[in-house]
Amino acid sequence: MHYVVRNAWYVLAWSKEIGDTPFSRRVLDEPIVAYRKRNGELAALLDRCAHKLVPLSLGQVVDDTLQCGYHGLQFDGSGACVHVPGQDRIPPAARVRSFPVAERYGAAWIWMGDPERADPGLIHVIERYDTPGWAVLWGERQHHLTHYLNIVENLQDPAHTTYTHRSTIGNPASSEVAPVTEEADDHIVTYRWTLDAEPPPIDRASGAFEGLTDRCQYYRFFPPCVSRVDVVTMDAGQEHTEANMDRGRRAYSYKFLTPETDTSTHFFWMHVRNFGVGDADFEARLACEFSRTFQEDNVVTSAMQREQNVTGLRQTAWLNIDAGPARARRMIEKMAAAEAAEAAGAASPADAVSRRTVAAS
Amino acid sequence: MHYVVRNAWYVLAWSKEIGDTPFSRRVLDEPIVAYRKRNGELAALLDRCAHKLVPLSLGQVVDDTLQCGYHGLQFDGSGACVHVPGQDRIPPAARVRSFPVAERYGAAWIWMGDPERADPGLIHVIERYDTPGWAVLWGERQHHLTHYLNIVENLQDPAHTTYTHRSTIGNPASSEVAPVTEEADDHIVTYRWTLDAEPPPIDRASGAFEGLTDRCQYYRFFPPCVSRVDVVTMDAGQEHTEANMDRGRRAYSYKFLTPETDTSTHFFWMHVRNFGVGDADFEARLACEFSRTFQEDNVVTSAMQREQNVTGLRQTAWLNIDAGPARARRMIEKMAAAEAAEAAGAASPADAVSRRTVAAS
Amino acid sequence: MHYVVRNAWYVLAWSKEIGDTPFSRRVLDEPIVAYRKRNGELAALLDRCAHKLVPLSLGQVVDDTLQCGYHGLQFDGSGACVHVPGQDRIPPAARVRSFPVAERYGAAWIWMGDPERADPGLIHVIERYDTPGWAVLWGERQHHLTHYLNIVENLQDPAHTTYTHRSTIGNPASSEVAPVTEEADDHIVTYRWTLDAEPPPIDRASGAFEGLTDRCQYYRFFPPCVSRVDVVTMDAGQEHTEANMDRGRRAYSYKFLTPETDTSTHFFWMHVRNFGVGDADFEARLACEFSRTFQEDNVVTSAMQREQNVTGLRQTAWLNIDAGPARARRMIEKMAAAEAAEAAGAASPADAVSRRTVAAS
Repeated sequence: MHYVVRNAWYVLAWSKEIGDTPFSRRVLDEPIVAYRKRNGELAALLDRCAHKLVPLSLGQVVDDTLQCGYHGLQFDGSGACVHVPGQDRIPPAARVRSFPVAERYGAAWIWMGDPERADPGLIHVIERYDTPGWAVLWGERQHHLTHYLNIVENLQDPAHTTYTHRSTIGNPASSEVAPVTEEADDHIVTYRWTLDAEPPPIDRASGAFEGLTDRCQYYRFFPPCVSRVDVVTMDAGQEHTEANMDRGRRAYSYKFLTPETDTSTHFFWMHVRNFGVGDADFEARLACEFSRTFQEDNVVTSAMQREQNVTGLRQTAWLNIDAGPARARRMIEKMAAAEAAEAAGAASPADAVSRRTVAAS
Repeated sequence: MHYVVRNAWYVLAWSKEIGDTPFSRRVLDEPIVAYRKRNGELAALLDRCAHKLVPLSLGQVVDDTLQCGYHGLQFDGSGACVHVPGQDRIPPAARVRSFPVAERYGAAWIWMGDPERADPGLIHVIERYDTPGWAVLWGERQHHLTHYLNIVENLQDPAHTTYTHRSTIGNPASSEVAPVTEEADDHIVTYRWTLDAEPPPIDRASGAFEGLTDRCQYYRFFPPCVSRVDVVTMDAGQEHTEANMDRGRRAYSYKFLTPETDTSTHFFWMHVRNFGVGDADFEARLACEFSRTFQEDNVVTSAMQREQNVTGLRQTAWLNIDAGPARARRMIEKMAAAEAAEAAGAASPADAVSRRTVAAS
Repeated sequence: MHYVVRNAWYVLAWSKEIGDTPFSRRVLDEPIVAYRKRNGELAALLDRCAHKLVPLSLGQVVDDTLQCGYHGLQFDGSGACVHVPGQDRIPPAARVRSFPVAERYGAAWIWMGDPERADPGLIHVIERYDTPGWAVLWGERQHHLTHYLNIVENLQDPAHTTYTHRSTIGNPASSEVAPVTEEADDHIVTYRWTLDAEPPPIDRASGAFEGLTDRCQYYRFFPPCVSRVDVVTMDAGQEHTEANMDRGRRAYSYKFLTPETDTSTHFFWMHVRNFGVGDADFEARLACEFSRTFQEDNVVTSAMQREQNVTGLRQTAWLNIDAGPARARRMIEKMAAAEAAEAAGAASPADAVSRRTVAAS
């Protein structure tokens, strides 16, 4: 895969997707099989038997091991073969790669890089998770037919909302407001406030606002794979203090991107909010709206990918609004280059980046 | 694309297909988007935004411009960007290619070559169009999975009718009559008269003939993309004067071929006739029969294309009936070679043709 | 195609599949068209007209010839063109390749190699065919998406039964019994007896056995394309004499593998048995069970093929149970290499094999 960071936690699945039968999904272009042991712990292996390459996900979970559906070889959660029917000797080659997995926030996270570095403490912290007065919504996984960097750019790009999401979260009034981009320690943020504007359709429908609103969006990207949009809609004319914002409708909209192949991505979204808590009908509508919204993105970024494939290009004209997205992309390209340089034993990551840049120019 | 003439008018669509929403179709392997302005005029652009390559057909028509569905850039009918939301400066690179279009005979014609040469006077003249006593039928566009030259050959080939169209327009009696091929100034014609024969099923059903008939077919090909078959069925035993032919059933059967890719073609057909005028039921049956007939061609030429792909060949034995089709193909190959030579700045088109021939042998 | 033997009889179709209309099927990566003449004899040609490559199977059978559906050329069963509409002279190039075919055991067999060697006496002999007290069941052809050698290995591999066929013919008890492999004159055999075991589900359902059973399976492979499994289930505790075995349930389960492409195979199965003879309901259930069973194999070997495509590997760890399958594969690789060497005019087949081995290492 191109431009992919291996040493990172990616969402493999929501927790509820993985039970005591084999679960398979392709991640970073490798076939993964996961299952849950009797003590509730997860395990993840390469989904390819060491014997004749048959996907282990065609077999079954037996005694906390994966039993191949072809000849019954059993592999434990570390990938070691613990049983070969009909013979006592277990060949040294009978072992499959295992991957660190961790469960947090209702998600199973997988580490595709160096297992030594797989520190669960590095899993991204979800704001207001398990906080009274806040609700969490896990969206259905979507399958976007585009390289994940196209989605990264899209998530860091407020300007498309007006056009791509005209019928959902878009707002004509916001189109002429230029966003500001800043880099923080561990992430990049692009934000804009839209003042004295009609609330967008999705908020107008809620009936929470009688008049004009102020609305802010902070698009944060934590490389390589977590996006968080902080959204506040509040009555216009007030100071933008934390307390006033909390009295408005406030939400953290997360997306977790898991590269599948060079042209496809698993798109997981999670929404943490301070309104409509406990209202099942509202939550169902919200889930439906968000699904539609993100499929609108999918339509655009998938079409973009097809044109990228045909032309070998990514962009021909540059606009001011490209600054944020371009920075987010560059952050990942640097990380990927640093990993590649390290893997290749280069003198320093910086060297590798500059060499790469030269080669691409 | 191979063997394609760029400086020519191709049918992009029937007029009725294009309204005030974006219409997309691939022509000569380029994605085209067309739309109709408020004054009724058409415009056609490359269907790929200059910014991030997103197809403009995913956007909408706003104030006689195409507005990209991603970031709202607006392009006018000339391909110039006239608005970038959020910034005043329009980057010079923000421009997409536009294509000359013209509307005539209920069709939108597009010119994929040098715009300087796009003279609407070069659009093919349709016989008896808008003539009292004659009716025009526009067929549904068909999608034929074959290189358009395979269709050119097929349209210039009377001999296949007996076999490929056994259940529609075919006529066993015609099979042993050899056609004659002649070259005119601007086209090639292959024709044959079948005398004292049973009328073909499609004419027999009409009840217009009580006994045997004389039937003629003139297969005319106007390179690179217009075919016209002049058909007369008349009572046998009369002189073949224009007046007598006009008393028979007479029709001009047009096909307009628009190459889509190297292995697919948009197939538009139009039928101009002097019988059953004003009879809607008859016309519906006629449209149905012709659709079936041309799909019979599609079955054969698509299968042929698949075998051409696999074998790298086009033909292994040569028959007398190949003369007409081969000449039609050669006319286009010459035109395409001349264009290529001119584009390459060669001394003369003739040179290029002979060099090409040498290279191919 | 890789690792394929051309000089052999392959099942093209069951007899009942071929009538007096063209029948098409791809064999050894060549398109074949077959038809039945008025005297009942079969003919098989390359399914590609010598004129413009159109599949002859799009035409029709006329007077014991295949008439092309494009221009009506007629080819007899030897592939000679016997009629060209509209001209007397038949061009020498107007000929298509024909293939020897023979009909036996309710099947049409085709010979894809040197026609001179197509001796019908080489068609594999079916045990107990047309024998009183025995019934024959012809299964529906299955389409397995895997190279036929993967199926050859699978058929010579008793060890997978327990796991792949858990819900049909599998038997947990058999899993720890090691099979024995021996080479006979013209075939290879792998067999095992399972003693004092519960009958497998398929036999248990029949009610034929009240207690424990002895069960044997002889997996015989006759290269390049015939597999026969001899199965006996008998009451435990008796001597394994022919007479005692005949009093049990005894069957010969045939599979005929016909390579279609490098990644797909026509899978024909036939079952000859001494029980449930004349019981149509039982036979229907049997056919259903076998179809399910062989589709279980298809699931595994097709998935294996996909992983082979991706990795370029076939196997990474070796087990004792691989001995039989590996020998079967080697027999075919030798035969294929010998044919290739002969075709290349090599000094001796042995030379070719060793050269091939060197090249592959």
